[in-house]
Amino acid sequence: MSTKLKCELCTGPGGELLWEDGICRVVRVTGPEGTAFPGYCRIVCREHVADMSSLTTSDAHHVLDVVLATERALRLTVQPDKINLASLGNVVPHLHWHVIPRWKDDSHFPAPIWATAQRTGVARAVPANSDLLCALQAELSTLNETP
Amino acid sequence: MSTKLKCELCTGPGGELLWEDGICRVVRVTGPEGTAFPGYCRIVCREHVADMSSLTTSDAHHVLDVVLATERALRLTVQPDKINLASLGNVVPHLHWHVIPRWKDDSHFPAPIWATAQRTGVARAVPANSDLLCALQAELSTLNETP
Repeated sequence: MSTKLKCELCTGPGGELLWEDGICRVVRVTGPEGTAFPGYCRIVCREHVADMSSLTTSDAHHVLDVVLATERALRLTVQPDKINLASLGNVVPHLHWHVIPRWKDDSHFPAPIWATAQRTGVARAVPANSDLLCALQAELSTLNETP
Repeated sequence: MSTKLKCELCTGPGGELLWEDGICRVVRVTGPEGTAFPGYCRIVCREHVADMSSLTTSDAHHVLDVVLATERALRLTVQPDKINLASLGNVVPHLHWHVIPRWKDDSHFPAPIWATAQRTGVARAVPANSDLLCALQAELSTLNETP
């Protein structure tokens, strides 16, 4: 079986699909992580490459623009204290970014979400996909206007 | 005392300085993390801002270009199995990127380096700053030539 046929990000969306274009897609993280960090999204590259530096500069800039549009949309929608960005891919070597809203009273703050939990996090409402998508589209629409 | 005067990335380099320009600098991480993940670098924004999305699009692209030039330089210099990128800033809210070379037999693989260690990692030689800088400068010199 080829690498692509075995790759869960080639064969499935990797979350609830919010938006996509020819280079990448934005998905909502579901399950316990999506509940603990409401609004947690991933940006998944369409092409099966492991690293950002495998992309052309133009495509890498585009993926970053989508990551940062998602960061801005999350800031408006769920008003976190901080947003964490990470591209790891040790388990699934298909380029994807984690965009994780964080609160000072969440289960792990100030440690990364992959560290040991420090407390039972304060429960928060999970935003509707339609609200997130609305904010995301507004941010993406400004991409070509920003200096 | 102002936020900037209290910020360790405003008052110090945050590691061994390898390279800098008007927007950001590349530093080597020293101490146990630098030994466990030889070549581990941070890219630190010169301006005291918390997030990438606080930068102009042009400056954010430039910071990403430096992050990816560092990723490529590390791949050439220390030949890791994977490179992890992260911008967290929960403890020090001054924009900085972690560029972390990873090996399948390091202390934490495939988990992020912030998770619980899984084993005693295989010890590796730490590259000389001069070798890393040479590779980094070669990568940075191609930035304007890449499509």
